[in-house]
Amino acid sequence: MMLNVYLSGEIHTDWRDEIIAGAEGLGVTFSAPVTDHDASDDCGVAIMGEEPNKFWHDNKGAKLNAIRTRTAIEAADIVVVRFGEKYRQWNAAFDAGYAAALGKSLVVMHGPDHQHALKEVDAAALAVTETPEQVVQILRYVLSGELPK
Amino acid sequence: MMLNVYLSGEIHTDWRDEIIAGAEGLGVTFSAPVTDHDASDDCGVAIMGEEPNKFWHDNKGAKLNAIRTRTAIEAADIVVVRFGEKYRQWNAAFDAGYAAALGKSLVVMHGPDHQHALKEVDAAALAVTETPEQVVQILRYVLSGELPK
Amino acid sequence: MMLNVYLSGEIHTDWRDEIIAGAEGLGVTFSAPVTDHDASDDCGVAIMGEEPNKFWHDNKGAKLNAIRTRTAIEAADIVVVRFGEKYRQWNAAFDAGYAAALGKSLVVMHGPDHQHALKEVDAAALAVTETPEQVVQILRYVLSGELPK
Amino acid sequence: MMLNVYLSGEIHTDWRDEIIAGAEGLGVTFSAPVTDHDASDDCGVAIMGEEPNKFWHDNKGAKLNAIRTRTAIEAADIVVVRFGEKYRQWNAAFDAGYAAALGKSLVVMHGPDHQHALKEVDAAALAVTETPEQVVQILRYVLSGELPK
Amino acid sequence: MMLNVYLSGEIHTDWRDEIIAGAEGLGVTFSAPVTDHDASDDCGVAIMGEEPNKFWHDNKGAKLNAIRTRTAIEAADIVVVRFGEKYRQWNAAFDAGYAAALGKSLVVMHGPDHQHALKEVDAAALAVTETPEQVVQILRYVLSGELPK
Amino acid sequence: MMLNVYLSGEIHTDWRDEIIAGAEGLGVTFSAPVTDHDASDDCGVAIMGEEPNKFWHDNKGAKLNAIRTRTAIEAADIVVVRFGEKYRQWNAAFDAGYAAALGKSLVVMHGPDHQHALKEVDAAALAVTETPEQVVQILRYVLSGELPK
Amino acid sequence: MMLNVYLSGEIHTDWRDEIIAGAEGLGVTFSAPVTDHDASDDCGVAIMGEEPNKFWHDNKGAKLNAIRTRTAIEAADIVVVRFGEKYRQWNAAFDAGYAAALGKSLVVMHGPDHQHALKEVDAAALAVTETPEQVVQILRYVLSGELPK
Amino acid sequence: MMLNVYLSGEIHTDWRDEIIAGAEGLGVTFSAPVTDHDASDDCGVAIMGEEPNKFWHDNKGAKLNAIRTRTAIEAADIVVVRFGEKYRQWNAAFDAGYAAALGKSLVVMHGPDHQHALKEVDAAALAVTETPEQVVQILRYVLSGELPK
Repeated sequence: MMLNVYLSGEIHTDWRDEIIAGAEGLGVTFSAPVTDHDASDDCGVAIMGEEPNKFWHDNKGAKLNAIRTRTAIEAADIVVVRFGEKYRQWNAAFDAGYAAALGKSLVVMHGPDHQHALKEVDAAALAVTETPEQVVQILRYVLSGELPK
Repeated sequence: MMLNVYLSGEIHTDWRDEIIAGAEGLGVTFSAPVTDHDASDDCGVAIMGEEPNKFWHDNKGAKLNAIRTRTAIEAADIVVVRFGEKYRQWNAAFDAGYAAALGKSLVVMHGPDHQHALKEVDAAALAVTETPEQVVQILRYVLSGELPK
Repeated sequence: MMLNVYLSGEIHTDWRDEIIAGAEGLGVTFSAPVTDHDASDDCGVAIMGEEPNKFWHDNKGAKLNAIRTRTAIEAADIVVVRFGEKYRQWNAAFDAGYAAALGKSLVVMHGPDHQHALKEVDAAALAVTETPEQVVQILRYVLSGELPK
Repeated sequence: MMLNVYLSGEIHTDWRDEIIAGAEGLGVTFSAPVTDHDASDDCGVAIMGEEPNKFWHDNKGAKLNAIRTRTAIEAADIVVVRFGEKYRQWNAAFDAGYAAALGKSLVVMHGPDHQHALKEVDAAALAVTETPEQVVQILRYVLSGELPK
Repeated sequence: MMLNVYLSGEIHTDWRDEIIAGAEGLGVTFSAPVTDHDASDDCGVAIMGEEPNKFWHDNKGAKLNAIRTRTAIEAADIVVVRFGEKYRQWNAAFDAGYAAALGKSLVVMHGPDHQHALKEVDAAALAVTETPEQVVQILRYVLSGELPK
Repeated sequence: MMLNVYLSGEIHTDWRDEIIAGAEGLGVTFSAPVTDHDASDDCGVAIMGEEPNKFWHDNKGAKLNAIRTRTAIEAADIVVVRFGEKYRQWNAAFDAGYAAALGKSLVVMHGPDHQHALKEVDAAALAVTETPEQVVQILRYVLSGELPK
Repeated sequence: MMLNVYLSGEIHTDWRDEIIAGAEGLGVTFSAPVTDHDASDDCGVAIMGEEPNKFWHDNKGAKLNAIRTRTAIEAADIVVVRFGEKYRQWNAAFDAGYAAALGKSLVVMHGPDHQHALKEVDAAALAVTETPEQVVQILRYVLSGELPK
Repeated sequence: MMLNVYLSGEIHTDWRDEIIAGAEGLGVTFSAPVTDHDASDDCGVAIMGEEPNKFWHDNKGAKLNAIRTRTAIEAADIVVVRFGEKYRQWNAAFDAGYAAALGKSLVVMHGPDHQHALKEVDAAALAVTETPEQVVQILRYVLSGELPK
């Protein structure tokens, strides 16, 4: 058994690296959005030409990012969505809804402060976690049946 | 041609009533989540028993609300998602993602302040609006081809 | 909003009647398996001819019942599955799995004695109940937002 | 032609090992649930924190196991479900219903005592067997056309 | 519960009329192919112009008939396929395969002479019958739970 | 049997009216895109605000029209696509491809001049016609089995 | 580009070998039913026990063969169905209908004598051929664009 | 992350070669229709026999090409559709609609002259480009997050 895991959401800490490092050797393939914030914002106009209106500037970029995001979510067995402390992160919640509608196994990660606000997202998840270490433990258990000591 | 429209998102203003009133006579059927905030929060424990832990209190309620929400979104032709000025509104973004993955026609409503934060949601939409009146105009045009004067 | 509800599982008490009576006026359409135990066991051979081997006797009947069961589950918005005190009731658990795979809203009903043995079924459900009254309360809440007093 | 086979159900005898050993060299990939009973029961709380209420203890674990179970069933060509002599085994029947709804080839294994109680499950199967050896013979025949001598 | 039943296959006897008459009052909607043999053969060229080559003459007609056939099978809950005594009737077997792949409840009707030749079709069916009366009994049982006396 | 027919393509002649008039009494429901050329071009900016760039002017309108177009195509049993003598009509070919991928019964209408250029579209169709009268004859035949005299 | 091709139908001549030999080096993977007539007839009872009634003897076997057949058809890009000179071959027509409903590319092979009787099957096909050599030419053209000289 | 890209549309310039060369080393697999114009037109009759009527000559060929086209589009993550300066190119628009209905990421390429006529196709796309270089930049960004300098 191999797992293909998409790591969605917050891009300002190194949680993805922690999970990928912790899962080394488990037989997991990871994918993620582009996490370079500036590139992600400007990719549309950088490739397809400037837009004076911020809405279309963002629209071109968001659609381009959607090529990567949707391809990766559709190919994933598990979608992990992390909500950080800051920002609106509506794209993270959007990805969670998208993954849920496709029947993907959803794993959510967030601190206790966001518990009430994320109750609908948590209710769609098969696991609600707080730390990258827990996600690694989940991946290890799902693949090998081995629990943390 | 009849349209079935689900009105998702913000529950603290009367935008749903404005749309429903404005669309009278157009042949549109509307559905929506339970918009009584307290009932929506407490429905799970009110029916299935108290939970000392807030997480499970919310979990029971959110799952119960999901019966209504998912049934209605799956039956809808158009899903309108409104983001208000306040709160995290992750459930609104979750609904938008859920609707997008099912191939529903997505109409988003929000003020200009949220434009950048909602760019991924807007990019999945067939229309981005600011007011209930615009949504009514869209429904009228889609059904009858008639434009506002 | 109308709901189509399939009532699966235990056939030796009148729980279906209680739910149907309690939900009167709510706009719910109900379906159910054939609950006449003898008819359900013998329908296949009664119509398509005797079988000396019990396996094929049962096989003919079970397939005939599947015409009703699957048609009704596929048409349902909500599938309620009740596990009674007695018997193996594997067909109830089979229906629950069938409904879950189709993405139906699953409501489970059983007493506390079966909690551990039904944990996988409960984990797939949007509501876990003990009584017909709770199911009626759920249907009322889902349709009208009204909670029990 | 390669086959991917999921082995669901009873976890107290070594039937999975017998099938896997018997099918060596046939080009079959096997998957299965976690068969360590304690790990399977406690995985949720071991990774995501203790729950004083047994229902939520079990719920956390059952959802975690569902990540493995559903991923594996969805990837399988054939789902073999074995019902042992003891226990309720509702999760086995749930898996059978889940697999049937997804259109998987279902192979059921059980002793003659359970024939009547499992008639609905058997009626959804493409093969009903009693022993691991028969399952191996089926896999060999399906892949190579070779029958037992 | 209402049933939508498609009556496929043999067109030289009045079996469809017998079923429709027998099912009167049961709440069943029936559909069927065009059973006027000449119209069915010539419809393509009658509407869209003559073809000197018999292959294209037939091709135009068969495609036109497919509009009716596929629309009706896709809308059906149950597909009844009757194989008569004469002719190749490959279109009947084609319809059976088409219905099976869509997950429709398949009911087959044929005499004992064709048992071996139809074994793959029968194996995909939920009921194998010999007479229109049996099909009526099945419809009555599926809808009302009532068995023949 | 009722049919839901979507009439796609050319908007400068009254072919839709001819079909609808000819099919009166047959039990056919028709839908179509907005055929007011100016309204169709300008609907986006008329409702959601001006765009200085023609690309976004058109983009807003085309997405709005897609709400109607896709909803109607998805609800249709038959999609009729007419290619007129003039213009590129890429939206007609796009609709044909969209309908084909959804498994809709496709009926194409065009003059002999376009035969070679439309060969891929024609190859996906169940009927290729030249006149509205032929489409009416097809609808009549599909519904009643009656051929033109 | 690789192609996965299922070779369905007639099992009394060596047409499969001719196609496989002719397609050597093209990058095509082939699958087929069990073509040993006796094994195919008796596989069910040989593995799962004798049946005195021929219907169930055949039923057990046909279901076992369906494990192979359906798995292979679902994995195929192209389904080639050959109708020979003799026998009813209803399973071939069933496979054609099954493949058509799944949207597989259907290639039919038969002699001119069967043209009229197979018109519905031919109408669902993307190619109608008479010889294995033509099927090889089709596979070569589809993969490389090379036509026969 | 690997990408499978189908290159649809105009066949008279070397835009496909430019994209394939530019994307070397990125981990992209490309597929395309047969671009030899004569082979593509005549493949049907060359393999399956002459047709005196041009309609059927083209029909045989277009269906044969559809085997390749549909298999490749269904396997693709991204469908790039280029509209050149000349010809009707309805097959390109048909492919775009087909890809859109399957939920593929659509990238359109055309010059500014066709902007208005292609507005519906562009509105379904995640990126609208003018040059092969832009498509390469998109593929590089989607796979690596790297933008052009």
